Amino acid sequence: MILDRVNSPIDLRQLNSAELETLAEEMRELIIKKVNVTGGHFGPNLGIVETTIAMHYVFDAPNDKFIFDVSHQCYPHKMITGRKEGFINPEMYLKYTGYTAPEEGEYDLFKVGHTSTSVSLACGVAKARDLRGEKYNVVALIGDGSLSGGEALEGLDNGATLGTNFIVIVNDNDQSIAENHGGLYDNLKFLRDTDGKAECNFFKALGYDYYLVKEGNNIEALIKTFNKVKDINHPVVVHVCTQKGKGFKLAEENREAFHWILPGALNEKSGDVYGDGEGYTSITNDFILKKAKEDKRIIVINAGTPGVFGWNKTFREQLGEQYTDVGIAEEHACAYASALAKSGAKPIWAVMSSFVQRTYDQLSQDLCLNCSPLTMLVHWGGISSADATHLCTFDIPLIKNIPNMVYLSPTYKEEYMAMLNWSVVQNERPVAIRVPNIELTSKGEEDNTDYSVLNKYKVMQEGENVAILGVGNFYPLAEQTAELLKTKLGIKATIINPRFLTGVDKELMESLKSNHKLVITLEDGLLDGGFGEMISRFYGCSDMKVLNYGSLKEFTDRTSLDELHTRYRLKPELIVEDIKKVIL
Amino acid sequence: MILDRVNSPIDLRQLNSAELETLAEEMRELIIKKVNVTGGHFGPNLGIVETTIAMHYVFDAPNDKFIFDVSHQCYPHKMITGRKEGFINPEMYLKYTGYTAPEEGEYDLFKVGHTSTSVSLACGVAKARDLRGEKYNVVALIGDGSLSGGEALEGLDNGATLGTNFIVIVNDNDQSIAENHGGLYDNLKFLRDTDGKAECNFFKALGYDYYLVKEGNNIEALIKTFNKVKDINHPVVVHVCTQKGKGFKLAEENREAFHWILPGALNEKSGDVYGDGEGYTSITNDFILKKAKEDKRIIVINAGTPGVFGWNKTFREQLGEQYTDVGIAEEHACAYASALAKSGAKPIWAVMSSFVQRTYDQLSQDLCLNCSPLTMLVHWGGISSADATHLCTFDIPLIKNIPNMVYLSPTYKEEYMAMLNWSVVQNERPVAIRVPNIELTSKGEEDNTDYSVLNKYKVMQEGENVAILGVGNFYPLAEQTAELLKTKLGIKATIINPRFLTGVDKELMESLKSNHKLVITLEDGLLDGGFGEMISRFYGCSDMKVLNYGSLKEFTDRTSLDELHTRYRLKPELIVEDIKKVIL
Repeated sequence: MILDRVNSPIDLRQLNSAELETLAEEMRELIIKKVNVTGGHFGPNLGIVETTIAMHYVFDAPNDKFIFDVSHQCYPHKMITGRKEGFINPEMYLKYTGYTAPEEGEYDLFKVGHTSTSVSLACGVAKARDLRGEKYNVVALIGDGSLSGGEALEGLDNGATLGTNFIVIVNDNDQSIAENHGGLYDNLKFLRDTDGKAECNFFKALGYDYYLVKEGNNIEALIKTFNKVKDINHPVVVHVCTQKGKGFKLAEENREAFHWILPGALNEKSGDVYGDGEGYTSITNDFILKKAKEDKRIIVINAGTPGVFGWNKTFREQLGEQYTDVGIAEEHACAYASALAKSGAKPIWAVMSSFVQRTYDQLSQDLCLNCSPLTMLVHWGGISSADATHLCTFDIPLIKNIPNMVYLSPTYKEEYMAMLNWSVVQNERPVAIRVPNIELTSKGEEDNTDYSVLNKYKVMQEGENVAILGVGNFYPLAEQTAELLKTKLGIKATIINPRFLTGVDKELMESLKSNHKLVITLEDGLLDGGFGEMISRFYGCSDMKVLNYGSLKEFTDRTSLDELHTRYRLKPELIVEDIKKVIL
Repeated sequence: MILDRVNSPIDLRQLNSAELETLAEEMRELIIKKVNVTGGHFGPNLGIVETTIAMHYVFDAPNDKFIFDVSHQCYPHKMITGRKEGFINPEMYLKYTGYTAPEEGEYDLFKVGHTSTSVSLACGVAKARDLRGEKYNVVALIGDGSLSGGEALEGLDNGATLGTNFIVIVNDNDQSIAENHGGLYDNLKFLRDTDGKAECNFFKALGYDYYLVKEGNNIEALIKTFNKVKDINHPVVVHVCTQKGKGFKLAEENREAFHWILPGALNEKSGDVYGDGEGYTSITNDFILKKAKEDKRIIVINAGTPGVFGWNKTFREQLGEQYTDVGIAEEHACAYASALAKSGAKPIWAVMSSFVQRTYDQLSQDLCLNCSPLTMLVHWGGISSADATHLCTFDIPLIKNIPNMVYLSPTYKEEYMAMLNWSVVQNERPVAIRVPNIELTSKGEEDNTDYSVLNKYKVMQEGENVAILGVGNFYPLAEQTAELLKTKLGIKATIINPRFLTGVDKELMESLKSNHKLVITLEDGLLDGGFGEMISRFYGCSDMKVLNYGSLKEFTDRTSLDELHTRYRLKPELIVEDIKKVIL
């Protein structure tokens, strides 16, 4: 393999044109093989191989600084910068994270996983260089999908005025995760169609110098242009047109399905990540389609990640005008949804837990201050073995502490359906629902609760001495703990399903004082600022003891769920041990 | 007065050209008179009088929908839409808020006070209209300063593709709050200089149709153009060039100082809001200037609100290259600062409490996940009589629950200086400091604490039975409460200055158990998710009683501080009453 001879970027310069091309093919094959085993970002990495080779050929990393956006396209970079074993040797496949990671070496400046950050970060790197009187190239690589995020646009606006070496490579593969959305993308197309010669140029309007590399998978063309901008003394955008999924025919044809794939997906010859069978995703989407058909005011919104919610093409086409993907633009998604609600539409907006924090000001100001009646569906919330950049443990503290918001956490199918139904029908307030991130369970009977009566918890089992509040995903854990408590200590615990995360059921909590010594809260998320602390505060000046369970304040990084559950004592036997210490 | 004849927008159409001009002059005079009494946004409102008259002359509000950005320029709109008494009658001056407010009538669609929201909100209004098959004009009015915010840029990008009636009026007065920053503003200038004919046009690049009104204080010119875009069937930007501060010579000349003024400022013939005398603002800025001179790696950053921090022109000029105002672009400010820190510079980034939430994802991902060593100064934090849009009670829950962050809350001068010094010198982690929002007090002796030893609270008075934790601004309240407790109940309380908001001093808290029954926490901010709940959780399964004091989860709106302190029981006599109930 040519790759055998590449141990660091400098080795690329020993290769001739043909060898560089072969290298690209080798790298692509390794990516296909590896990602089919581990899962991961597929299409974006296949498309960016040549760009990465040319970047490392022309610039002098790590002296020159590369800042990768969102890291969807950092695999080739990792292969060239001393981490190829993670792609060659199946036993090493999991050694390196799928994102840029400074702990893996000096070629990665930042730990990045949320989109739209590279240009802003690169501004800081360039400014620090100038303040310190140093000389090197600062190069941000941003995919077209990330361009529409507020942070990217703010960064582009500011970067244009740096008056110094500042190179932004825009990887335009004409595709975000799903299709692109926004006027910006029409301009990218216009620039492609006019060979970059059009004067009406988004980047030039901001003040950037501009180059187009139309054949963005041609290493020689890339090297030629990168050589032109190397050591440039002002901000420049290099617009590189690449083929997403290049080298894997199915991925070239179906760019959305192959953006990120599950292990083994290529064997099935379909990158489709949408699962089959009944689950909280499928019942949500059945509900949405039914409601949307009945009521033309229903409108379904997300920001560039329809796959997370199982919103495939068929689903989107069925909704037609009642569906908006705003692209990667979470702030806009929230404000847009709020205004729709205020103007007589019925928005249902879905967001992945990890991305709630991308639109905090809008949640507070545009949505809750205006008390707009919409439904916000929070998906994937809970402790997980995810990469540090994609943790989903922060949504409860983020959402529950905003005035006017109602945050619901259902525990089984019929309850979830009743909450959804209520939320969509009511006209009073914003309602967020934490879509359960566990296997679907059904009780087989309708839930007739009137959820407009806020903060009413539900007693599922009457007991005494110990009361266990099992929130959402952790309701089954509450039941298991109660069972073990019965077996081990002979205590029949009261089991409570709080349902409402945003307030205390004072009456019920007061009533527990008469025959309970200990209240336990179980929540699948961060303890700090969460549901449990609210309960602890409530009982602060009473004799009731309280134990809060949830995750600690830390960025875990691909730590196994079992290890985390043990660390946080989220297992029936560990909880019963703790209970013993407190009440015996 | 002509204004006497204007009770609603429709009355404008009875006026001829000369009368409309006179009306503008009358409105301007009333604004000058009123704002000099009440304080408020001055320059932006003087500039937008003619645009507002023309908007209401041409369009049919409230059937046509106006969405105002940030509300810095909504006073003329209020005068025309039935609220003129709030500007004519001094006794009514405080009747209406300084922001758009739906509770004041159907002409205001949203309660808005944070910038950059209008275009996004307008997208939602337009989409709802189309879904419902209704017909009306949707008009967003956005000032040039707000354009650089991520939400505005996301909204502009998406609005361009609506394919329907969508009108964005850009009020270009060539000035944000302070001067404008970013490439976008060069393009606005270029468009002004070329009479709007240049092809390299930011708005056209996004896909908007485009009109320029170069004489944006000329009612006839405005009416002419607005008539052209009324009932348009596609997205259009009307770029209106206005004179900020028009009609008040000093404000025309010093547009920054007169953006927002204090009561009586016009009598002094200076709109300068920068206070004199020693206070936390002045000692912060003296520190910054001294440090920056000693260490060229120091760089001082803010997002468009230098006035909040007392960073006047002299201050900024002294810092030169070591100062960056990124314009209204908080997300960028945070990521930029983080990258500076990672690249060997020493950033000091200041932000107003109310705006912390505008950059939450960046705080978490760009800053804390990367553990970049910078200093973040949070100003104005605390309960206040502010408008609902500018509350400063949320910063503690927002900042303290992010992993890796250290959030400090000093209580007197030397302590604050020691924290600042440590923060700037250390290279380990992000440090936020809540700049005290109270009168400066000095102990006259240096604080030699090593703040790298985290979460060490300081016992200021040894006592027993009751321990009072007084956080930051509320440390004096802790002392006053202890004093009253001594007088009334003969209890000498332990007084503790926690200093660290981000963690529990477990050793100290454990030790209190031996001779204390009750711990009280006092924090000048939201209880939910705050410091006190963390303490409640800590003592959850012990015999220690805990009482948390702070603000409740609600959007208060211009409620007096005294009323709020009573409501939240933040007064020594009320706290002592509560203590009595718990421990006697």
